[in-house]
Amino acid sequence: MLITLTTDFGTRDGYVGTMKGVIAGIAPDVPCIDITHEIPPQNIRSAAYILWTALPYFPPQSIHIAVVDPGVGTARRPIAARTPWGILVGPDNGVFSYVWEAAPPDRIVELVNPAYRNVAVSNTFHGRDIFSPTAAYLARGVPLADFGPEVRDPVRLPAPTLAVDDTTINGEVIYIDHFGNVITSIGRLVWDGGLLMLDPAFGDAPRGIINAGRVHVLAAGQDLGPIHRTYGEVEPGEPLALIGSEGLLELAVNRGHGAQTLGLQIGDHVEIALH
Amino acid sequence: MLITLTTDFGTRDGYVGTMKGVIAGIAPDVPCIDITHEIPPQNIRSAAYILWTALPYFPPQSIHIAVVDPGVGTARRPIAARTPWGILVGPDNGVFSYVWEAAPPDRIVELVNPAYRNVAVSNTFHGRDIFSPTAAYLARGVPLADFGPEVRDPVRLPAPTLAVDDTTINGEVIYIDHFGNVITSIGRLVWDGGLLMLDPAFGDAPRGIINAGRVHVLAAGQDLGPIHRTYGEVEPGEPLALIGSEGLLELAVNRGHGAQTLGLQIGDHVEIALH
Amino acid sequence: MLITLTTDFGTRDGYVGTMKGVIAGIAPDVPCIDITHEIPPQNIRSAAYILWTALPYFPPQSIHIAVVDPGVGTARRPIAARTPWGILVGPDNGVFSYVWEAAPPDRIVELVNPAYRNVAVSNTFHGRDIFSPTAAYLARGVPLADFGPEVRDPVRLPAPTLAVDDTTINGEVIYIDHFGNVITSIGRLVWDGGLLMLDPAFGDAPRGIINAGRVHVLAAGQDLGPIHRTYGEVEPGEPLALIGSEGLLELAVNRGHGAQTLGLQIGDHVEIALH
Repeated sequence: MLITLTTDFGTRDGYVGTMKGVIAGIAPDVPCIDITHEIPPQNIRSAAYILWTALPYFPPQSIHIAVVDPGVGTARRPIAARTPWGILVGPDNGVFSYVWEAAPPDRIVELVNPAYRNVAVSNTFHGRDIFSPTAAYLARGVPLADFGPEVRDPVRLPAPTLAVDDTTINGEVIYIDHFGNVITSIGRLVWDGGLLMLDPAFGDAPRGIINAGRVHVLAAGQDLGPIHRTYGEVEPGEPLALIGSEGLLELAVNRGHGAQTLGLQIGDHVEIALH
Repeated sequence: MLITLTTDFGTRDGYVGTMKGVIAGIAPDVPCIDITHEIPPQNIRSAAYILWTALPYFPPQSIHIAVVDPGVGTARRPIAARTPWGILVGPDNGVFSYVWEAAPPDRIVELVNPAYRNVAVSNTFHGRDIFSPTAAYLARGVPLADFGPEVRDPVRLPAPTLAVDDTTINGEVIYIDHFGNVITSIGRLVWDGGLLMLDPAFGDAPRGIINAGRVHVLAAGQDLGPIHRTYGEVEPGEPLALIGSEGLLELAVNRGHGAQTLGLQIGDHVEIALH
Repeated sequence: MLITLTTDFGTRDGYVGTMKGVIAGIAPDVPCIDITHEIPPQNIRSAAYILWTALPYFPPQSIHIAVVDPGVGTARRPIAARTPWGILVGPDNGVFSYVWEAAPPDRIVELVNPAYRNVAVSNTFHGRDIFSPTAAYLARGVPLADFGPEVRDPVRLPAPTLAVDDTTINGEVIYIDHFGNVITSIGRLVWDGGLLMLDPAFGDAPRGIINAGRVHVLAAGQDLGPIHRTYGEVEPGEPLALIGSEGLLELAVNRGHGAQTLGLQIGDHVEIALH
């Protein structure tokens, strides 16, 4: 049993430490693991992506807190959702949307039971006052139904763009990482010899096969050529397209910062020309 | 039993990991929790504030290390202080002052016993050589008195400004967080219907009642109007005053960076005009 | 038993959390301790230095993962090395070189056994797919020999410059820390009254004795005068030379940023004039 934490709190202020203090007071033997606290402030989509990449690698009985919460203190509901990837705890604002596409929840509840909150609940720090105690009591075995009534209409974000036709696969930049690698919605792609199997992670595009030797990747008005297997296949400083660690099409510069060099931002169109 | 760490070491250099290595060698089953390592370098007041906000949320038998230590290697004493909020370990430079206002120490000792230090003590890294072994041996149950003689004159910082008269409550900016929210010394304030109960956290101002409907918050030459309950009560981009998660008056911009927008810095005067 | 993590992944992206998820799935009771994730991207020498400073403070049965890996996905080998400072797991690119100078490996193996990798190994994230499972299985007691064949020619970085003659000790800047303190290859130095004992940490320079009262430290065209014992011996804002926490000659500014004030960078020449 473990609890993970994903927030936009940064690590400067003691907010994250305070959450772990609350958890330690309720469930002292349950370790906390940080996924990240550097989600861009109030950027729900980035948090949704990070959770989607990290959660499948944790034991399925884990409890995952996510606090990216521009609506804290308003009518937005605090929720917990049980899924095949663990129990998710956070605001009902779509932050778990991408996880739910891969690991649908079988029950979502609104967190209203005062027995599982701090005695005084602030209007500005539900991470400390609602989500941390909830996760700690869940780790102690309190049943989900004890926290509050079922939620049947959770907020969902639209899925990232992924559209396939006879001549192109169209997607968008969904994340730029610490190294400057540009991650797109096009995938999941798996090598099978010189072919790539497309098994869409987002939306309802059909599965398909791509002849990797015949495609060109187009982004920011540039032709990045074919799809490579790893950074080292091009010279240092050269751009390339490859399949990233999540199976998504990634644009990068070997030993450089892809997003800066290529001039790409989240939301930008990316395309694979198939012939 | 757990040990927390609060420093200005940053997370780039391995200094924090090294401290945890020392602790793991002495008390292998005691988890370490980071409060923050991004205190502005050598800023004792910011550390004092962060400790004051975080420590009450930890189990009271916890051990808390704080290393913000511009005087390392000089005559300043290394100390441990037993309080209702746990045992505090760090330099005698006032870093625990704000905690002591709320949770007075019943015994403070100077850390002089070589049995509970690293064999070689550097002049520049007492976090590794004195404070980490001290915390680990305390976690193993070594009595406080074994570490050294009692300290009766610890260094204390002056309390943040908080002054109340018939027409105004005067305070100062004491912290600016990662989101740009501006935290002041005015509090603690608790909502009771349309009234606010003032129960001073700092200094010796009297308790009182504020008619929240009739006050104006003044800062940086601007009238921020009345006191709100949460960020979402004003439009995105608009400034507001509200009660933060510690019960202190906070100045913010909904979905924006309050300190930059309002032009406020630590130490700036903030005032509530009562009529 | 514990596992440490040292990477250039940053803490923004969830990569580190994902590695801990993999470890928790295989070895749930083994704690992970971060040394740092802010190695400058792909800077193997900085990682080698950080590991050299931190690892001796951990219990010798610890397992240490280092992932600074510009060659990921190419022919560079993944390895594990057993040393007196614990078992080291990472790419065969020299990242463990400085540790090996102090704690020579008695066995190094190439990580080829698919039983101890993730089912699907990406070309870009061996931290998740090879190094984390390896460390977790090592923590569970799997013998080193089960992971793959012995490696007899691991990649080694050249040692930092350290040369001694009758009139000077010559070295170089090897690291600049979060405070701006400038750490050099000259050491280890230990005070013995007014003398300094030199016991070279790098290279094959001879041991020796320095009369600290008669030397001058020269760097960036400036004479920094004699060697001090701690920052507080000079006025705030003044530069000084002293012995850092690793026993290496360090250049700093009391309560300031030494590297910026002195204009020093990694690789710059530093010298002690002996008379």
